[in-house]
Amino acid sequence: MQILVFNAGSSSLKFGVFSVATETHEVFRGSYERFRDGKCEYRFRHRETDERGTASFDNPGEALKGVPDALKRFGVNAIDAIGHRIVHGGAKFSSPTLVNDETVEAIEALTPLAPLHIPANLKAVELCRSLWPDIPQVAVFDTAFHLSNPAFVTTYAVPARWREAGLRRYGFHGTSHKYVAERAADEIGRPLSDLQLVSIHLGNGASVCAVNRGHSMDSSMGMTPLEGLVMGTRSGDVDPGAFGFLSRELGLSVQEIEDALYDQSGLKGLAGSSDMRDIEDRAAEGDPQAQLAIEIYAYRAKKYVGAYAAAMGGLDAIVFTGGIGENSPSMRRRICDGLAVMGLQLDHDRNIAVSLTGQAAPQIQAYGSRVRVLVTETAEQRMIARETATALAGGRSDGGLRLPIAVSARHVHLSRDAVDALFGKGYVLNQAVALRQPGHWAANERVTLVGPKGRLERVAILGPLRQRTQIEVSRTDSFALGIEVPVRDSGKLEATPQVTIEGPSGSFTTDGLIIAARHIHTNPVDAKRLGIEDGEYVDVRVGDPDRGLTFGRTLVRVGDNAFTEVHIDTDEANAAGIDVAATGELVQI
Amino acid sequence: MQILVFNAGSSSLKFGVFSVATETHEVFRGSYERFRDGKCEYRFRHRETDERGTASFDNPGEALKGVPDALKRFGVNAIDAIGHRIVHGGAKFSSPTLVNDETVEAIEALTPLAPLHIPANLKAVELCRSLWPDIPQVAVFDTAFHLSNPAFVTTYAVPARWREAGLRRYGFHGTSHKYVAERAADEIGRPLSDLQLVSIHLGNGASVCAVNRGHSMDSSMGMTPLEGLVMGTRSGDVDPGAFGFLSRELGLSVQEIEDALYDQSGLKGLAGSSDMRDIEDRAAEGDPQAQLAIEIYAYRAKKYVGAYAAAMGGLDAIVFTGGIGENSPSMRRRICDGLAVMGLQLDHDRNIAVSLTGQAAPQIQAYGSRVRVLVTETAEQRMIARETATALAGGRSDGGLRLPIAVSARHVHLSRDAVDALFGKGYVLNQAVALRQPGHWAANERVTLVGPKGRLERVAILGPLRQRTQIEVSRTDSFALGIEVPVRDSGKLEATPQVTIEGPSGSFTTDGLIIAARHIHTNPVDAKRLGIEDGEYVDVRVGDPDRGLTFGRTLVRVGDNAFTEVHIDTDEANAAGIDVAATGELVQI
Repeated sequence: MQILVFNAGSSSLKFGVFSVATETHEVFRGSYERFRDGKCEYRFRHRETDERGTASFDNPGEALKGVPDALKRFGVNAIDAIGHRIVHGGAKFSSPTLVNDETVEAIEALTPLAPLHIPANLKAVELCRSLWPDIPQVAVFDTAFHLSNPAFVTTYAVPARWREAGLRRYGFHGTSHKYVAERAADEIGRPLSDLQLVSIHLGNGASVCAVNRGHSMDSSMGMTPLEGLVMGTRSGDVDPGAFGFLSRELGLSVQEIEDALYDQSGLKGLAGSSDMRDIEDRAAEGDPQAQLAIEIYAYRAKKYVGAYAAAMGGLDAIVFTGGIGENSPSMRRRICDGLAVMGLQLDHDRNIAVSLTGQAAPQIQAYGSRVRVLVTETAEQRMIARETATALAGGRSDGGLRLPIAVSARHVHLSRDAVDALFGKGYVLNQAVALRQPGHWAANERVTLVGPKGRLERVAILGPLRQRTQIEVSRTDSFALGIEVPVRDSGKLEATPQVTIEGPSGSFTTDGLIIAARHIHTNPVDAKRLGIEDGEYVDVRVGDPDRGLTFGRTLVRVGDNAFTEVHIDTDEANAAGIDVAATGELVQI
Repeated sequence: MQILVFNAGSSSLKFGVFSVATETHEVFRGSYERFRDGKCEYRFRHRETDERGTASFDNPGEALKGVPDALKRFGVNAIDAIGHRIVHGGAKFSSPTLVNDETVEAIEALTPLAPLHIPANLKAVELCRSLWPDIPQVAVFDTAFHLSNPAFVTTYAVPARWREAGLRRYGFHGTSHKYVAERAADEIGRPLSDLQLVSIHLGNGASVCAVNRGHSMDSSMGMTPLEGLVMGTRSGDVDPGAFGFLSRELGLSVQEIEDALYDQSGLKGLAGSSDMRDIEDRAAEGDPQAQLAIEIYAYRAKKYVGAYAAAMGGLDAIVFTGGIGENSPSMRRRICDGLAVMGLQLDHDRNIAVSLTGQAAPQIQAYGSRVRVLVTETAEQRMIARETATALAGGRSDGGLRLPIAVSARHVHLSRDAVDALFGKGYVLNQAVALRQPGHWAANERVTLVGPKGRLERVAILGPLRQRTQIEVSRTDSFALGIEVPVRDSGKLEATPQVTIEGPSGSFTTDGLIIAARHIHTNPVDAKRLGIEDGEYVDVRVGDPDRGLTFGRTLVRVGDNAFTEVHIDTDEANAAGIDVAATGELVQI
């Protein structure tokens, strides 16, 4: 499958052609930039050819009309689909989406969130629809990867009216962070869902992303690409009190301040240049402005790494990408030095020797460093091509099977040690009720959970005994206990919080406190009928199409004798207004 | 010495009387609050008495006139000095300052930085000067502790013109953070100058401070008290793009947005109440707004702890203070959980059992936790009393002694191992030049330093050999190497960066790379004449009074045979325009 990818910005047009099969290969790369006086510079790369020149286009939209000729001239034909980078998908677009009138309208409605970029993106989409009316087009959103950020990350502490008007954090560079995280997991040789990564994209725009077990948890850009790190010409984080000060003291308007924060700030505001190579050379010669700019740039990035290690409660690796992340060993070193406090040490020779030919992702941590450090080229266009192909190939059947839904109230699975401590040495629990999953039961006995805020009495015990005690509560329960409890798949208990369990014979303090992630138990036969696989995440719709809701990211667990049912907790059941006999169905993608 | 302390805000007047000797004791505590309809509520505490009532004052300024009568009524007489909390000292006031016309004028000039608070503070100062014209008054600044923050912390990445107009980070709650850090060091039983602490002040205003070896390095509030954590009614960090969005979409002015960020945001904006106790109770009952508010509040604080551990390159302890920090075990737990990645684990029983009577500072980390966790009451007024007394007792003589200045160019002190690796096993360096410090010399041999950005050739070797290799470069050199190098006192080499040294026989990679902090070598006799002590920090003025400059924080090192001289590096010498025969003098305080 050959896919043409467009990244149409307000000041440049980049495009590429990729052949997507098991692997994704770049076939052609082109760009139109530096539009001035009705002209622009172009560059085309195809096999051994690297052609540069000047073309008579006034703006990126016009330049797009030159693409068909360019492709024809290099013999790149047979485009099967077109993928577009769209800068903002708002809260609506969580995955790549086929372009039609409805999609275009929905993207247009998001213009207030990115007033410069969305019109440029849409102009390219519309032109492509008229140039290639028969080729399917897919919109790939820069924000989509971050829609998995929890509400406590996306919510600003501002008045409700502002939040209702759409003021919230989104995050950008999603396609890059996702690509880089997957590339790092590949290189490390562990599934992304097991890793806690920080992806550091340092280009002209710059952002850091906490990729927690495969999902974006937080990133440094917010509602707009202005928040976060110091960038080429953008300020990153600034005291919100700055606007009042600048308006009172210098008489500036909101628009004047915002324009300068986008175009006259960052490295340019600090050192007069947005080019880090230039700044590094000047700093080495003693230029104090350039030195300060480098220090601020590195310091802010380093703080985000620490913040995200704390946010995720762990750190397995950090990954550098983007022009500066890929090419500046001294910036990488500045950011990494001092992070030994969280188990990260750089190998200085490997750091200097980094070479990224052939999509390499070298590891440059020191021997014995608990945290890995990788460097890799970002490949947003390659990723857009891949996502475009996947979106077009989509589709899944529910096999006509309704999925029974089981609601789990708070409960504990106890280890032998725990039973001994709570009920007395060698005590045997009484199996009161058999559960639908073969071999599982609820005990007659109950226990109490104790946290810093309060107690939960008469909590059920489910058997059989396990190697490790696991305590499953709802989110509401977590506030009654006063403990922050992570959402985890059953059995994934590393670095989970502690809680005290009280029984008639004593108490037992243990980690293993989780909010169980919703999941589907199923067996190989049903899984095949449903077209789902062990370890996969699917969406499950519950209730009628109008008033019901869809549970995203529901983990599939295939076991030989399992009874097929969806497990959710009491909060989820309440949200869905579910009664005891509820069923759900897989959502068609 | 009895000291009357005022904290005059825009909506309340708090005051106290303290007896300051070796220990500081509270004698009296009073407040006037909730001004409405020409009335207010007062509260006076003195020994066993706790009196509350209503007084006919219209505002905090008026209420100040009631203070003399209140003190007289309780028999609290003989005030020796008055200390004032002043919210903003700008870049000018780095320490408590005696109040006179000049001081008042300088504070008034800072009004644009805190337009609500400075007028209220100054009104109290002026009233006190007319009520007690013969009693000395001292201004203690909320920002002063943070003036030690390095430029890469205080500088926003914005246009030069804005920075010149005064837009920079200051930080607040300085008196509280300083008190709490000193209290924690006491409790831990180690000098504050050896510790890397994070102080977490969670009151109605809230901020986090990185206290790095005794000095504030960074804090979460910025130019204004609006930046940083979620607070009672203040937003904390918000995307700077929010102003443009709110102005375009909701037609709000800068003033309207700023007012709402101060008064209608934070916990109040999220959950309708600024009272954490209320919010915690509602959360436990299932209120989703209250739950989200708690999660956001804790998450933002947790990220700052991680960021500051990374910033300092280490973390020995965190300290909770302020109403919420002191009284909410579940908030403390939410912030600490998940920080095991940086060696911090809470003891849940100790956390719940915290009692703060008698200025206690209990440690609540788990057994084996590398990072300590403390809780203590903040005592800003007590600290203001102490600082007022110290400021009045100040004064130092330079004993008529001019201090010779020695400029150190980059050099290395080598260990036996290093000499073996660089020059061959058992090699003996040739002592080419004797230095002024007895027994010290420079060698004939030279080495090369290698970093990710570049090389420094022909670097001097100073003898005698040391137990541990130490490499001293200037800040300019650090950029030529491309390594971020900390400023350290000689010999304090824990967690310093690595560098490669090349010699004729091989290379040697080692930590110990520092920018040497400026210092004064002196002997007991000269020290006595100068009125300075080993380990003390003093200011040294160099050059003529008009064009010269003053080196702050210069460490005094007293050695039995030392030759008295000030050691600075080449950057400092260039800054001061120093020639070889330069001398300096101690600054009178």
